[in-house]
Amino acid sequence: MARYTPPLRDMQFVMHEVLEAPQCLQQLPRHAEVTRELIDQVLEEGGKFCAEVLFPLNRSGDEQGCRYEGDGVVKTPDGFREAWQQYASGGWPALAADPDFGGQGLPNLVAIAMQEMMNSANQAWTMYPGLTHGAYDCIHAHGTPEQRTTYLPKLVSGQWMATMCLTEPHCGTDLGMLRTRAEPQADGSYRLTGNKIFISSGEHDLTENIVHLVLARLPDAPAGTRGISLFIVPKFVPAGSGEQATLGERNRIMCSRIEEKMGIHGNATCAMELDGATGWLVGEPNRGLQAMFVMMNAARIGVGMQSQGLMEVAYQNSLDYARERTQGRSLTGPKAPEQPADPIIVHPDVRRMLLTQKAWVEGGRCFALWLALQSDLYDAHPDEAERERAAGMLALLTPVVKAFLTDNGFASTNLALQVYGGHGYIREWGMEQYVRDARINMIYEGTNTIQSLDLLGRKVLGDQGAKLRDFGKLVQQFIEDEGTREEMAEFVNPLADLAGRIEKLTTEIGFKALSNADEAGAAAVDYLRVIGHLVYSYFWARMAKVALANQDSADPIYRSKLATARFYFAKLQPETAALIRSIRSGAKPLMDVEPELF
Amino acid sequence: MARYTPPLRDMQFVMHEVLEAPQCLQQLPRHAEVTRELIDQVLEEGGKFCAEVLFPLNRSGDEQGCRYEGDGVVKTPDGFREAWQQYASGGWPALAADPDFGGQGLPNLVAIAMQEMMNSANQAWTMYPGLTHGAYDCIHAHGTPEQRTTYLPKLVSGQWMATMCLTEPHCGTDLGMLRTRAEPQADGSYRLTGNKIFISSGEHDLTENIVHLVLARLPDAPAGTRGISLFIVPKFVPAGSGEQATLGERNRIMCSRIEEKMGIHGNATCAMELDGATGWLVGEPNRGLQAMFVMMNAARIGVGMQSQGLMEVAYQNSLDYARERTQGRSLTGPKAPEQPADPIIVHPDVRRMLLTQKAWVEGGRCFALWLALQSDLYDAHPDEAERERAAGMLALLTPVVKAFLTDNGFASTNLALQVYGGHGYIREWGMEQYVRDARINMIYEGTNTIQSLDLLGRKVLGDQGAKLRDFGKLVQQFIEDEGTREEMAEFVNPLADLAGRIEKLTTEIGFKALSNADEAGAAAVDYLRVIGHLVYSYFWARMAKVALANQDSADPIYRSKLATARFYFAKLQPETAALIRSIRSGAKPLMDVEPELF
Repeated sequence: MARYTPPLRDMQFVMHEVLEAPQCLQQLPRHAEVTRELIDQVLEEGGKFCAEVLFPLNRSGDEQGCRYEGDGVVKTPDGFREAWQQYASGGWPALAADPDFGGQGLPNLVAIAMQEMMNSANQAWTMYPGLTHGAYDCIHAHGTPEQRTTYLPKLVSGQWMATMCLTEPHCGTDLGMLRTRAEPQADGSYRLTGNKIFISSGEHDLTENIVHLVLARLPDAPAGTRGISLFIVPKFVPAGSGEQATLGERNRIMCSRIEEKMGIHGNATCAMELDGATGWLVGEPNRGLQAMFVMMNAARIGVGMQSQGLMEVAYQNSLDYARERTQGRSLTGPKAPEQPADPIIVHPDVRRMLLTQKAWVEGGRCFALWLALQSDLYDAHPDEAERERAAGMLALLTPVVKAFLTDNGFASTNLALQVYGGHGYIREWGMEQYVRDARINMIYEGTNTIQSLDLLGRKVLGDQGAKLRDFGKLVQQFIEDEGTREEMAEFVNPLADLAGRIEKLTTEIGFKALSNADEAGAAAVDYLRVIGHLVYSYFWARMAKVALANQDSADPIYRSKLATARFYFAKLQPETAALIRSIRSGAKPLMDVEPELF
Repeated sequence: MARYTPPLRDMQFVMHEVLEAPQCLQQLPRHAEVTRELIDQVLEEGGKFCAEVLFPLNRSGDEQGCRYEGDGVVKTPDGFREAWQQYASGGWPALAADPDFGGQGLPNLVAIAMQEMMNSANQAWTMYPGLTHGAYDCIHAHGTPEQRTTYLPKLVSGQWMATMCLTEPHCGTDLGMLRTRAEPQADGSYRLTGNKIFISSGEHDLTENIVHLVLARLPDAPAGTRGISLFIVPKFVPAGSGEQATLGERNRIMCSRIEEKMGIHGNATCAMELDGATGWLVGEPNRGLQAMFVMMNAARIGVGMQSQGLMEVAYQNSLDYARERTQGRSLTGPKAPEQPADPIIVHPDVRRMLLTQKAWVEGGRCFALWLALQSDLYDAHPDEAERERAAGMLALLTPVVKAFLTDNGFASTNLALQVYGGHGYIREWGMEQYVRDARINMIYEGTNTIQSLDLLGRKVLGDQGAKLRDFGKLVQQFIEDEGTREEMAEFVNPLADLAGRIEKLTTEIGFKALSNADEAGAAAVDYLRVIGHLVYSYFWARMAKVALANQDSADPIYRSKLATARFYFAKLQPETAALIRSIRSGAKPLMDVEPELF
């Protein structure tokens, strides 16, 4: 019963009018030819594929789920395989890939926008190719020339897919404990033995081969995370190498079970057994985590985009429902007197639920596309200093895009469900699936707690706030540029106020953490949300600026942005008051509780 | 894989030590014999039934669900019917019922505590008898003597069950639009025709008969809510009347479908067709909503207890998991150096997730049991003024117990799931079911928005704050009694501060709402949460008082309560700072948005 319309106009607003992405990309030799028209055209085409091919498979994929057929065979829901063939033949896996390996070489910006739309249409399906691009990045960065020519063209063409195999039954967050072993063989390959769980898309029938990137230990490896290496373990060992490689023998990596889950039923979450499987080392021995991090960072932004996509489609539908469903009268008198009741969008709290979703999803889009642009600068800027600055922004804000968007995504999809009242709880309407699907995003690729520790511990305190100050400079510049314009005051003042409070707060936490590391652990989750609000305040203020300049336009988007920015600062940003009070109360209320008192 | 242990010690702490319920009940002639020992004994027995009979059917009931077998027949999950027989033969439906109709005449306090345990064990099952007690109350209060003798003994014995039939496809919240018609017949009965949806337990195989209480319109009824009457429409028309009544002919009220839902799969949510069904008027014509409200208030407290129960069981399990699962090291050095990793309960944020659940569930228990005691005072106090005071407390705080506990319940069960990491998302562990089940509680029996409008519009502004001041007097008395004790300052000060801010805030909203009714609608949801925090602050301070007096006891419960009270005031109560800021920003950011700008 749900519908999905790609938010092309909103993407254009963000990319072209707020971020001025085409101008920004044209500074990069690699993307000198990228124009606004090209971007729009690709996304229009991509949106069509999402709405027409992927979206109709979303509910049926959830109902049907994946089936484990024994002997390592997994059957995906009806239509998934055909959709993949269409996706691959349309050249979509190649979108942002290197032309040297068959890619189209488009900027990450376009690929990330496409990811949002794919996830709006069908998160479970999108998870199949979801990790392939990360694996591509990883092999591209760390693979040998032969690995690159053997695997990259097939991943880029969509002939093969890839996975990430990290988690084991006894270890998820704490990869230092992992036990899968890799024994070196005379021919330079390795034999891998162990058990992996929670492997998304670990087995399926979409492609002829699946390239697993597996973390394991060498026999002489040191204990902990410094003893982990990364291996390519293909389902079918390539016969021959380079571009001519064909499918060789079936490797001894096998799906033994798929999990019954709360949601993302259309995606196979696999337990994998490696029973002397043949693999090849990627990168340096014992440096597997570092190599895998290339992949993990892309995956974390990808998870943020999953929730971004779900927020958009859930918002669209709850908005339709709020406009159509009539129930009760406006407290200030009938608004549709010709009907027996008013549409529920007249009620203030229904508006609160809609505008909350709208502020989260549109703020998330601006943030995520800006971050995608940073990754393009990092990949391709001719100036080393610019690349480093972009790397810092990516490092700082990847945990924020992952955790803040997925927490907001769960809240948003739940508001969408709530707008439907009892109907929201019924499967037929489709809203409850969005809630179930959105729930995993707060957990995988590092729980949101892990993201917050990464942000506060490693990215902020770890370099004495240098990266945070770099982002702060952008904010300060904007405040200086716009702070004297009266009509911008309602946006600039709360932004400046929050920025100032964060500076003090960060110093306070830093001092406390010097004498007690648990102070950082106690503050981290709240702190990430405060930083998320700084980011959203900045981008909502930037969007408001563009909107103010165009508010007399016939296009309603500008007045819509102004109204949403005002709502954001009035109703959502105040959350920071509670978060900062909670942070200030410190670790004592958490840590002064003896274990038996829980 | 989940477990459930009835929280008997905690219930005793609340009932006997904090609320002094036995002394309070003994003032009521009807309950003069109720002792602490009697209460404990009943709850111990009840807890055993919940843990041993209901709990083992929870996961299987969710997996199996209900089945619509055609021709109006619904099959409940395996074991549900046998559990009902055991429940009925144990006399549990009679617990708080009138001895004149076979009841045991125990206080509501005991029944509400029992409800919590039943919902911890199995919410879907508990929904079958869940509305029967409300129907019993309704017929008891508004039925004719013949209706009382025909229906009440069979509801009390558990031979029959009852439902509430309100919602229709086009109206849920707005009952004024309902269309089901009732035509008077020569014999004094009525013929009812119409369609009802979302009827919980509308059809099942647990009892031989189901007594539907149906809202419908008489032919000459005025439009809107003033034209709604209430009818008894039994599945099988009783042959004969009074206690001798037996099953007569099958009535023309039939289940036509059951809904596929997000959760509570073990409960049948039915679409019901009335095709000239025979019914009898309950109470006055056109006064059906007033009669139904007796039932609805009990049902709303019942929904609060559903989430209360889910919070408890989810907390217990996530606590076990946090103690057993080892992953990573404490930031302040190994706490279990003999193991390869520390149990995750050493991590500050895992503690935050556990203590948040603990503060919500234990605060909710104290609040709900106090409210149950108010309902006993209301039912049975010899002094009219005391009965009225209790009625005021019930009226004021029923929407709070419904909405605040169910919002917190959804947050809590989600935290429990999060503590499990990826395993929380897997069905086998049982946590995701609690999240799916808890989600409905924010919607049915009046969405939480409706509860907040009831609280702010009707209960607070509707009587110029008189009921709220009555509750405020309890708070003030406590502050005066304890405010001079230094060791109570950390609890009394934030309570007093919040109470003072609420007084000002309520006046502000009242003034604004005089000129614009949407100001109340815009504030309502945040306002209910602020009041919820006032209630929790009051009860956490009262619990802290008892705990302080006993902190040297060998029983760890007192030090546990102190630690949890400190956590509540440090980490959860600060939410009010954000809520109050959001309320103060008023209706404008919501209402100044033209419909096309969404």
